[in-house]
Amino acid sequence: MAKHMKTMDGNTAAAHVAYALSDVAAIYPITPSSVMGELADEWSAKGQKNLMGQTVAIREMQSEAGAAGAVHGSLVSGALTTTFTASQGLLLMIPNMYKIAGELLPAVFHVSARALASHALSIFGDHQDVMAARQTGFAFLCSNNPQEAMDLALVAHLSAIDSSVPFCHFFDGFRTSHEIRKIEVIDYEDIRKVVNWDKVQEFRDNAMNPEHPHQRGTAQNPDIYFQNREACNPYYNEVPAIVIDAMKRVASITGRNYKPFDYYGDPEADRVVVAMGSSCDVMEEVVDYLNAQGEHVGIVKVRLFRPFSAQLMLNVMPATVQTVTVLDRTKEPGSLGEPLYEDVCTAFVEHGDQIRVFPKLLAGRYGLGSKEFTPAMAKAVFDNMLVASPKNHFTVGIEDDVTNLSLEVGADIDTVPAGTVQCKFFGLGSDGTVGANKDAIKIIGDNTDMYAQGYFAYDSKKSGGFTVSHLRFGKSYLKSSYLVNRADFIACHKDSYVHMYDVLEGIKDGGTFLLNSSWTTVEDMDRELPGQMKRTIAKKHLKFYNVDAGKVAAEVGLGNRINMVTQTAFFKLANVLPIDDAINYIKAAIKKTYGKKGDKVVNMNIAAVDKALEALTEIKYPESWADAADTPSIYHDTDPYIANVVRPILAQKGDTLPVSAFDPTGIVPLGTTACEKRGVAVFVPEWDSTKCIQCTRCSMACPHAAIRPVLATEDELEGAPESFVTIDAMGKELKGLKFRIQVYAQDCLGCGSCANVCPAKEKALVMKPLETQLDAQVANLKFAEENISIKDDLVDRGTLKGSQLCQPLLEFSGA
Amino acid sequence: MAKHMKTMDGNTAAAHVAYALSDVAAIYPITPSSVMGELADEWSAKGQKNLMGQTVAIREMQSEAGAAGAVHGSLVSGALTTTFTASQGLLLMIPNMYKIAGELLPAVFHVSARALASHALSIFGDHQDVMAARQTGFAFLCSNNPQEAMDLALVAHLSAIDSSVPFCHFFDGFRTSHEIRKIEVIDYEDIRKVVNWDKVQEFRDNAMNPEHPHQRGTAQNPDIYFQNREACNPYYNEVPAIVIDAMKRVASITGRNYKPFDYYGDPEADRVVVAMGSSCDVMEEVVDYLNAQGEHVGIVKVRLFRPFSAQLMLNVMPATVQTVTVLDRTKEPGSLGEPLYEDVCTAFVEHGDQIRVFPKLLAGRYGLGSKEFTPAMAKAVFDNMLVASPKNHFTVGIEDDVTNLSLEVGADIDTVPAGTVQCKFFGLGSDGTVGANKDAIKIIGDNTDMYAQGYFAYDSKKSGGFTVSHLRFGKSYLKSSYLVNRADFIACHKDSYVHMYDVLEGIKDGGTFLLNSSWTTVEDMDRELPGQMKRTIAKKHLKFYNVDAGKVAAEVGLGNRINMVTQTAFFKLANVLPIDDAINYIKAAIKKTYGKKGDKVVNMNIAAVDKALEALTEIKYPESWADAADTPSIYHDTDPYIANVVRPILAQKGDTLPVSAFDPTGIVPLGTTACEKRGVAVFVPEWDSTKCIQCTRCSMACPHAAIRPVLATEDELEGAPESFVTIDAMGKELKGLKFRIQVYAQDCLGCGSCANVCPAKEKALVMKPLETQLDAQVANLKFAEENISIKDDLVDRGTLKGSQLCQPLLEFSGA
Repeated sequence: MAKHMKTMDGNTAAAHVAYALSDVAAIYPITPSSVMGELADEWSAKGQKNLMGQTVAIREMQSEAGAAGAVHGSLVSGALTTTFTASQGLLLMIPNMYKIAGELLPAVFHVSARALASHALSIFGDHQDVMAARQTGFAFLCSNNPQEAMDLALVAHLSAIDSSVPFCHFFDGFRTSHEIRKIEVIDYEDIRKVVNWDKVQEFRDNAMNPEHPHQRGTAQNPDIYFQNREACNPYYNEVPAIVIDAMKRVASITGRNYKPFDYYGDPEADRVVVAMGSSCDVMEEVVDYLNAQGEHVGIVKVRLFRPFSAQLMLNVMPATVQTVTVLDRTKEPGSLGEPLYEDVCTAFVEHGDQIRVFPKLLAGRYGLGSKEFTPAMAKAVFDNMLVASPKNHFTVGIEDDVTNLSLEVGADIDTVPAGTVQCKFFGLGSDGTVGANKDAIKIIGDNTDMYAQGYFAYDSKKSGGFTVSHLRFGKSYLKSSYLVNRADFIACHKDSYVHMYDVLEGIKDGGTFLLNSSWTTVEDMDRELPGQMKRTIAKKHLKFYNVDAGKVAAEVGLGNRINMVTQTAFFKLANVLPIDDAINYIKAAIKKTYGKKGDKVVNMNIAAVDKALEALTEIKYPESWADAADTPSIYHDTDPYIANVVRPILAQKGDTLPVSAFDPTGIVPLGTTACEKRGVAVFVPEWDSTKCIQCTRCSMACPHAAIRPVLATEDELEGAPESFVTIDAMGKELKGLKFRIQVYAQDCLGCGSCANVCPAKEKALVMKPLETQLDAQVANLKFAEENISIKDDLVDRGTLKGSQLCQPLLEFSGA
Repeated sequence: MAKHMKTMDGNTAAAHVAYALSDVAAIYPITPSSVMGELADEWSAKGQKNLMGQTVAIREMQSEAGAAGAVHGSLVSGALTTTFTASQGLLLMIPNMYKIAGELLPAVFHVSARALASHALSIFGDHQDVMAARQTGFAFLCSNNPQEAMDLALVAHLSAIDSSVPFCHFFDGFRTSHEIRKIEVIDYEDIRKVVNWDKVQEFRDNAMNPEHPHQRGTAQNPDIYFQNREACNPYYNEVPAIVIDAMKRVASITGRNYKPFDYYGDPEADRVVVAMGSSCDVMEEVVDYLNAQGEHVGIVKVRLFRPFSAQLMLNVMPATVQTVTVLDRTKEPGSLGEPLYEDVCTAFVEHGDQIRVFPKLLAGRYGLGSKEFTPAMAKAVFDNMLVASPKNHFTVGIEDDVTNLSLEVGADIDTVPAGTVQCKFFGLGSDGTVGANKDAIKIIGDNTDMYAQGYFAYDSKKSGGFTVSHLRFGKSYLKSSYLVNRADFIACHKDSYVHMYDVLEGIKDGGTFLLNSSWTTVEDMDRELPGQMKRTIAKKHLKFYNVDAGKVAAEVGLGNRINMVTQTAFFKLANVLPIDDAINYIKAAIKKTYGKKGDKVVNMNIAAVDKALEALTEIKYPESWADAADTPSIYHDTDPYIANVVRPILAQKGDTLPVSAFDPTGIVPLGTTACEKRGVAVFVPEWDSTKCIQCTRCSMACPHAAIRPVLATEDELEGAPESFVTIDAMGKELKGLKFRIQVYAQDCLGCGSCANVCPAKEKALVMKPLETQLDAQVANLKFAEENISIKDDLVDRGTLKGSQLCQPLLEFSGA
């Protein structure tokens, strides 16, 4: 039982156990559960053995409905069977969940809980999906962090085998499924010791088998259905005791103890929160923080949500409690209260005589669609219980200026263990920042005695989108399941971000700021950085470094993959490991990650690492930066929807928008992309007028509508910039007009589809570095916008193809 | 606003309103909601106009998932849209329900609530399906009987239009959807007056439209999803007031008043039940019954289940209440309590200060899969509240000898209004009994000033199965939503039933018994009827009639369609209308029902009516029948599963089986059909050995395995009955063996597939009346069973085709 620590995410932790105890996994991967299915598939393909000495049979079906049907069929034939899903995927499994539970088959579903599509889709985490399945007859067991995702995954499998009741083991999508933590891995041989193999054999013996046939899944009439439906009661009655026993067996091999309900806090608490999921870790930090200040608070962590044992919950509830707040990470419009709250109300109605006074019971909603749940929010929940007329059915984490349900949240409080180093990295989707940071946190976790945690916030633009990596490490165990809000180190891997985002928000006094840019001198910086940023750098006494990673990456042949350079610079500056050791670990990680792509790729990355430190420069800024004046915003939006809603969202300030900013039905105006001007392409097309045959296929092919044909009269062209080249338009209806292909360089994503599709003998579009194109195209666009009319009548007369809209700007249709 | 009464079922009542207020209905009919979709389809095909002056566009999709998707799309394009579904169908709609509610689209789903498949499938009624959708954000409105199915369907449509919140209007599958009652129909022109046409226009104006485009169904990130999800709150907050207003508008055209929660009973009740659905009508009868005896009880009928207004519920709850029992018609294994109970607990926790004392709260489950809920059961629920330690989380309507949760139910109590005539008709599926009884109850309802009610209990064997029609009529309004348990009149339309079922159970003293048989004299009856039945007839002083309907039907060319004869006999004996008037109404109904099949069919049915009364004979039985001895059972089952489970179910005594009789996983042994020996075929095949080519296709074609080839040795044939004809088996491996096709006449359903498939030049199988075949085939079968071995070795050697199993009996595989 030697401790075996490893740095991994919650999905990997759960999949590790699921693989051990499954004969079959029928899957249909869906975000954020995909990693589990994909890992199991990979392990199976590599021939990894489960505890039965076989590779797990992985079957990917046509949808989650099919996966659930296959799980049912597999179980009926006596195979221990699991699946991994979330959100809409779990909804599609509901009909089969009733069947699986109804036939008392020991399935285990591992669910990285996710929001459901309602007014809008969300791929992020909350409990709407598991709550939509709570009535199916499955047992539900909740993990709060990656360590628990491993430990309670095992409890779920053991309990399903012992009870014959299927289990849904769930944890917060992204916050737990994708958070990387250093955890203790349970060895397969230890798992073997705690499985009730007799029950496994009994399950197999009862399977459908032509040697001893039986019939299931019959139709029953009113005379007998009800009686038979009640026959399962003893099985459910026994589940809590079976789970307690399974938890004890897991403790026997791990030393970590769990109960169906765990209490944390003051044994004489007057205020208690009841909750499930990753918020519990946050709450523990805040409970310690408040109790250290003389308050008396605590938290009941619900692990076994179904079957819900009122008795077991009240056993851990302090008898001194006066107010209980139940937090639900779901919303059921029209319900009297969310499900966990109603359960707790019912529990007190049935067993309230066990506590001194019937407590005041309050309900709150939080964290929908991965909305952050921070220590300050947790404190607001405890504070609400102190006031004479506390808010009930409140929300926390947003500003509800419509129904006024939201709690006022105070200033951030610092509850992260002292000595923890906290870092943030701003990257561009597919620039390698996230991958490198995953390696970095694993290097730290797996090669030091420090605890480590990594979380990676994306937007949904994927490649070319926005990423922030949040890393923490230190000697203390980490429970901080929220984004880094007090950073010791911030890296910005994309220079244009300095104008777009408040990159240095939350950096500590004396912290380190690493910028990746081609601005290598203090003069460059003085010219390029906005005044606000210069002021923060100086006032907070930051150590300011630049690394010209793009240059190094280009030199070694890696194009825009700057991650190895920035990662090496981080290890140099963070000083968490001796830099030579760190470099060796990075190189080992490169060999592991890129090995299958061949030596050339490996060597280029290694070369990037070797050249990284040369490219790192400290920027010795003047004290005068502390007085720098604000650089005015580059945006002058006249439309209020753009100014008040779109622009804050683009600046990563969407969290500050109140409820009233949104249409309740989820309706949004069209064409808002046009205001974004992201400028994230590395290469954009240049139009060569001499080669163009005016087919406009480039315009049709562009997935971002960033290439448009323009038709201008001679008059309109007066005063055009020199670069605004035009040619005579072809076709007799267009006689006298001038033709041009206008590239929207800032809207381009650099995919190159336009150039690929160009049918001209010599391509009329060629991809060129953005910086060589940007200024001219922006000027050209401005000229077209202001001077050239849209020739709708030509379209109306059918002269032009649909794509030749002759529309100089993708217009914003208005709110 | 002249009263327009019509006799119809709940499905028709709801469809009547749905058709008026829908532009589009996307459907995928499923039991027991099919009638709604089918009627709407029929009305549309006939060109019937909705209130917008158009025929409703009906689209049948590939599944309920597709129907829900089409509903969503249709709503988004500005069409008032509805669907009709139940059970698994509703489960498939859940993902789209979240979207429809999330986008605040005024859909109305009409759901005839049905059980879900768990340990077994059930096509019957309870609330499991709607409870599985309660979290979607739909509003839920419950009707308790066919009149309410019409009235509240209108409330649902009006409220959806006004609130923009989608509504699920539901009522009990079968008990309400298929119960025929005389109700008051709301005229379309009256509906027109109460629709908020401005809101309809507003809804259409907000639809997706290329003239004023917008975008919906976006993806949102953690920054804004939560805020937007909360933006719907004001809409839900307003729903209760909107529903109250809609109820008032409906009252203005109907005179019938409803509230979101309606109270019925003693205004100073100490015991109150909270429930939804058809049980409420039963409970009203029992409340009157108990209060008449000096008790103080009442019932809160939940109509608006979501949004659930605790305040509105407590407004109608007597302040004197001491104990509340919440009845849920669903089961959620592992939950602390079923959903309505948890809502009521929460309501009291939040607003309990409004009543004098915090009441004791109890929970009960009832009626799963259409399990009967009778006045005696309702009384047991009220009685349970009187004892010092009442059962909580009880079941009522079954005997739970496993977890002992069931309430003891006392003797039946009579709560049907005095003067009500109650009738029961036992029929064979597809003999026309149910159809004729539907006509009969409509004739009574639509042509007299009496109230009328009809309910039709089926087993799931459909054609050839067992049916019981339950009819009530009388001067008083009928609330008796349960089977007839005190009959004035019982008809048995199938002679063999006298041995199979306790046909006369519950008949009143002096009641009338009408048998359809060829036994026309008292001597025939004395010979054929079991002693128990003779004793009941005599001891209860029944008026006993026989009608030889089969003879009449055969004479007029109707084959086995005996329904017109028995219906005429019923009207003669029931004396509810002057018989000549009744005969005219029957003939009018014949023209309506069979008109499209042509004059010949109409005339045959009319001839049957004209000859019916001649075939009716009173049987003047001797007083000595009162002392008749029991006729012993014809069954001698050695297997305990057959004797203790299957046999009671086949005898329609399945309600008496306790929970312990059933495997909790729904597993049953194979081959139990073999013990049934239903003998329901009118014609069965006769094998002609001289024509047979021994291909055994007849055996393969038989869907009931009622035809088997037999191979016998000469030795085995010793002592065979004369009718046990055999021929030399063909093929050299079978040399020396004798071949025969054995018909299992009692298992045959008379479909004729065997004869159809016979490829011999002259058919070797010809359908002959059962009575000409039965005795010989039963004797032959008995001989084969006792004397002829199974020649498995021939199968093993591959000599015989799979179907030639040479197995004299479909063996029962044992429990």
